[in-house]
Amino acid sequence: MSSCLLRKGEVSSVVGRFMDVLIVGSVAYDSVVSPLGNVKDALGGSATYAGLACSFHAKRLSLGQIGLVGVVGEDFSDSDRALLQNSGLDLQGIETAEGETFRWSGSYHGTMAEAQTHETHLNVFEHFEPKVPQSHQSPQITFCANLHPALQSSVLNQAKPRRLSMLDSMNLWIDIARESLIEVMQNVDLVIINDGEVRMLANDENLVRAARKVVDMIGVQTLVIKRGEHGVIAFHDSDIISLPAYPTEDVVDPTGCGDTFAGSIAAHLASGSGQLSRDELRHALLSATVSASFTLESFGIEGLHSMTQERFQTRLEKFNQMLN
Amino acid sequence: MSSCLLRKGEVSSVVGRFMDVLIVGSVAYDSVVSPLGNVKDALGGSATYAGLACSFHAKRLSLGQIGLVGVVGEDFSDSDRALLQNSGLDLQGIETAEGETFRWSGSYHGTMAEAQTHETHLNVFEHFEPKVPQSHQSPQITFCANLHPALQSSVLNQAKPRRLSMLDSMNLWIDIARESLIEVMQNVDLVIINDGEVRMLANDENLVRAARKVVDMIGVQTLVIKRGEHGVIAFHDSDIISLPAYPTEDVVDPTGCGDTFAGSIAAHLASGSGQLSRDELRHALLSATVSASFTLESFGIEGLHSMTQERFQTRLEKFNQMLN
Repeated sequence: MSSCLLRKGEVSSVVGRFMDVLIVGSVAYDSVVSPLGNVKDALGGSATYAGLACSFHAKRLSLGQIGLVGVVGEDFSDSDRALLQNSGLDLQGIETAEGETFRWSGSYHGTMAEAQTHETHLNVFEHFEPKVPQSHQSPQITFCANLHPALQSSVLNQAKPRRLSMLDSMNLWIDIARESLIEVMQNVDLVIINDGEVRMLANDENLVRAARKVVDMIGVQTLVIKRGEHGVIAFHDSDIISLPAYPTEDVVDPTGCGDTFAGSIAAHLASGSGQLSRDELRHALLSATVSASFTLESFGIEGLHSMTQERFQTRLEKFNQMLN
Repeated sequence: MSSCLLRKGEVSSVVGRFMDVLIVGSVAYDSVVSPLGNVKDALGGSATYAGLACSFHAKRLSLGQIGLVGVVGEDFSDSDRALLQNSGLDLQGIETAEGETFRWSGSYHGTMAEAQTHETHLNVFEHFEPKVPQSHQSPQITFCANLHPALQSSVLNQAKPRRLSMLDSMNLWIDIARESLIEVMQNVDLVIINDGEVRMLANDENLVRAARKVVDMIGVQTLVIKRGEHGVIAFHDSDIISLPAYPTEDVVDPTGCGDTFAGSIAAHLASGSGQLSRDELRHALLSATVSASFTLESFGIEGLHSMTQERFQTRLEKFNQMLN
């Protein structure tokens, strides 16, 4: 039975066998202190947040499989593994290595715009070499969440996406692995980084000018710039899309907001037409902004867990009203 | 001949006899250093920028008179006076006092988000007591640009607007005249301040929560929060409107951007229905954002001068495309 003979409602069960989004990134235990409390050794990491957000939207958008590639230590709990699996994520690409799971601790102060890192223990990540399972090697979208750019490159080489590749990064790699980062950026279709990173990469304080320099430098089609509480500005071909953040009174823990944002975009791009149109991108950015607002409101992945399809839709409508 | 017998094209010459917007604020000579150059003793001040922006839009919107109330010194040049008059501003309310015109000098660095003040010489402003000319006493809109809150109160008492009162302020008055500022804020319909000032007033780092606290504290219908390069967020009754800034590569001198923004809003409110609707406010904020982007691109009032009706329209359309 060929898929072109299917009626609309039947598509999801069939395309469900294929890998739609492959996400490589960190799986971690985070300890976070914010003015509103703290949490210790909570499930986190870029692949975790991006994966959970992506699988949330995959259900809405009738996508197929979402696979994670990463590494955890022997201490990674069965309940956390079950949580990821139950959310619909394929964990074949998650290796269990000798040693402890990656740990990060940090705190937020004042406007909570930026985390202050207290400790980073790479643990099993120190010698991690990502291996993409054979069944994951031609996804629609390959998304490299924040990770050493050399590991991102390795995954991109193993899993050439049929449609689109995207990556996130962080200031650390601009500092210590700039050449390697620029090289991998030159090989993707869409780059998501924050405003400070764009300024750093371009060595220019003016964000619009810095963005144009980065686009020229890496020759990317789409540059999505996260601005935290100030929203997002995207440069797409010759277009600019600028959106505010979803206004939130309950800022509890910004950890994972950027990953939630990126994972949501990945899901939308997988469900798109193939050609990334301006309207598709804008729609993805709207959904991603609303999704991140849930992550922001609780510690760890709790906010994402509290995001039901109904709550998401209500907030998306409210956001649309606010903008139009 | 009653105005209700007029055809549309004839309105402006008749309503031109009435005062539509009264603006009180400073007229100053500014010296500014920015990474892109510097300017010495350039015409500036909150009333200057707000007045020029307001009169620009008054022409587009077929408004009547725009009057300024303020004080200059004996050194205020004839050419600057002529420039204000030729732009269509009524200067009957501008007093010439013994002494020198108010002078401010400052510089911008890095992202240029905030000015570093070098010197402030109040000069003639030190003993200024605003007197609103009789012909200016019932404008449609009274706009108190940034000025000591006691002077703003005095003007509001003298010139009760028929339609709407609005005010701008700055962190200095929150520091040294908080009670007086809150009192005058309680007496206006619309308050325009920046994000840092909202946080200061509410003593809360979360902008959305801080905004709600300020709205409760002063019981204002509309709170417009300027966020510089991050745009604007407005709280209007139970609505929120959030807009990004116009993306600008040529940030030369942010001095006067906030006043340009507020003066543009004043013009739009004067041309509105009387009831400030959400759509009217949003339209005013869009035009104000685009107007401020012109001020930003040159030193002093040069940017405003370069804003022709055609250039404004082109940029407004581009901004609308960016948002929708």
